[in-house]
Amino acid sequence: MDFTAQDIDYAERVKGSFDRQPFMKYIGAELFAVRPGYCEIHVGYKKELTQQHGYFHAGVIGTLADNAAGYAAYTLMSADSSVLTVEYKLNLMSPGEGEKLIARSEVLKYGKTLTICRSDIYVIKSGPNGYREEKICAVAQVTLIELKNQQDG
Amino acid sequence: MDFTAQDIDYAERVKGSFDRQPFMKYIGAELFAVRPGYCEIHVGYKKELTQQHGYFHAGVIGTLADNAAGYAAYTLMSADSSVLTVEYKLNLMSPGEGEKLIARSEVLKYGKTLTICRSDIYVIKSGPNGYREEKICAVAQVTLIELKNQQDG
Amino acid sequence: MDFTAQDIDYAERVKGSFDRQPFMKYIGAELFAVRPGYCEIHVGYKKELTQQHGYFHAGVIGTLADNAAGYAAYTLMSADSSVLTVEYKLNLMSPGEGEKLIARSEVLKYGKTLTICRSDIYVIKSGPNGYREEKICAVAQVTLIELKNQQDG
Amino acid sequence: MDFTAQDIDYAERVKGSFDRQPFMKYIGAELFAVRPGYCEIHVGYKKELTQQHGYFHAGVIGTLADNAAGYAAYTLMSADSSVLTVEYKLNLMSPGEGEKLIARSEVLKYGKTLTICRSDIYVIKSGPNGYREEKICAVAQVTLIELKNQQDG
Repeated sequence: MDFTAQDIDYAERVKGSFDRQPFMKYIGAELFAVRPGYCEIHVGYKKELTQQHGYFHAGVIGTLADNAAGYAAYTLMSADSSVLTVEYKLNLMSPGEGEKLIARSEVLKYGKTLTICRSDIYVIKSGPNGYREEKICAVAQVTLIELKNQQDG
Repeated sequence: MDFTAQDIDYAERVKGSFDRQPFMKYIGAELFAVRPGYCEIHVGYKKELTQQHGYFHAGVIGTLADNAAGYAAYTLMSADSSVLTVEYKLNLMSPGEGEKLIARSEVLKYGKTLTICRSDIYVIKSGPNGYREEKICAVAQVTLIELKNQQDG
Repeated sequence: MDFTAQDIDYAERVKGSFDRQPFMKYIGAELFAVRPGYCEIHVGYKKELTQQHGYFHAGVIGTLADNAAGYAAYTLMSADSSVLTVEYKLNLMSPGEGEKLIARSEVLKYGKTLTICRSDIYVIKSGPNGYREEKICAVAQVTLIELKNQQDG
Repeated sequence: MDFTAQDIDYAERVKGSFDRQPFMKYIGAELFAVRPGYCEIHVGYKKELTQQHGYFHAGVIGTLADNAAGYAAYTLMSADSSVLTVEYKLNLMSPGEGEKLIARSEVLKYGKTLTICRSDIYVIKSGPNGYREEKICAVAQVTLIELKNQQDG
């Protein structure tokens, strides 16, 4: 869907908020792309982010699914609003086996109070021939609320 | 509900799996209690686990909700099974503001293939009078699958 | 949890709204009990409500899970508010095999804008010895929104 | 996504199962289209399917979201399998105001045991100029299980 941001400085605002989240830094997350109604976050592999099989931990996958949705929604909000996740639901479809996790989230509906997003999470793996393969590993539906007149952070 | 574990060494098996998850160590999670059909995980506050307001990040809350459910389910499984999360849904009800997060999960149904758990996540905060207050901050429903004849980790 | 209704006529208000839902009548639903933060709805078996095995259709189960939550939340709202379901998540745990479906929903959190409820759905079946057995067949988490100054129906 | 059905008679099998669901007939649902990994179900407006504002009841919307997913998944299963919904999560985004509900569901992942589907539910309304407008009113993620060697109905 095509959205227009009401705050022309939305990208800066999103980046500012992202940078104020110590947990994003701790897991090595990078705010890769942002545009009205869309956000993409990347996380590179490191041993500390894995579960017992050496794959990305579901907790990291869920973190990205939620955070990408939050910032996709936040692009559309007023300059003086902050955003909170109300709830999300995540289906894990394949193991998070690879070198990088990519969460792409888009707004399905931006409402007066609530915003609904869909997040797709991919894992990137180098194939035997040297090509990188992107495989979907999880999908989420996320509900967010806009808190008006509340500074973020 | 009351459950009986089919594997008498379930607690050791759960602990072994938990200890093989580098991400649990990275966030400082402690497997606090485990009994048939139940698991409790604690995480103490540290700056690295927070979002922009200084509260526990939703990603940490979701990680605990999912992981506690996985191990609650795992207590009931056969010795030679491993457990995977199929999906979960998390409602964030209050900010994760406090010194410690506690996730308590119990099995609602242990089925031949699938297990359903409910996780409640609490945040512990010292009140003005020195007492510790426990407040529920999130609830989750989690679906898990038992993979028979598959070693964990 | 114990809640106090801000509108002393909450029971009447809930009943009025329930009675204005033609679909509730069509499936034969009965508003069985209501108290602050709680609602219970019953539906008796009829062939028209079944799926291919003769059990209650998941659509009926989901309808009750959602509706009971809506009215549990509605008991706590102001006299001039209406209630809308934002989203729900339902786990079907056992077949809906029996003579009656019972949905019991309670409010987990009543917030300024959003309310979170948990619904348990049971099926009642007469056992071989003539006793009625109640078995849980589904659980749900439901998020609702209070629309202030909006008449219901 | 493109899928191939392993059972060439999948369409007949789906139709047979759909026709054995009395609840589908009761709400006037029509199995409109089916192809490998996809199913579309329509329901025309009738007063009996509404809530207090005269719109399609959320219970009907949820029923379609779930059922369309079940049959999208069922197209890909073996001839001697039956399908059950494990769980679903539904976001209601706009009122179900219109003359017809359309649920379109597609398989995101067909696994050995579990299948994940995404359902979009639209409502059709005649605009002032006589054109029909299609508006998305709900989205769902659905998890289904394949029960092998079990006859449907």
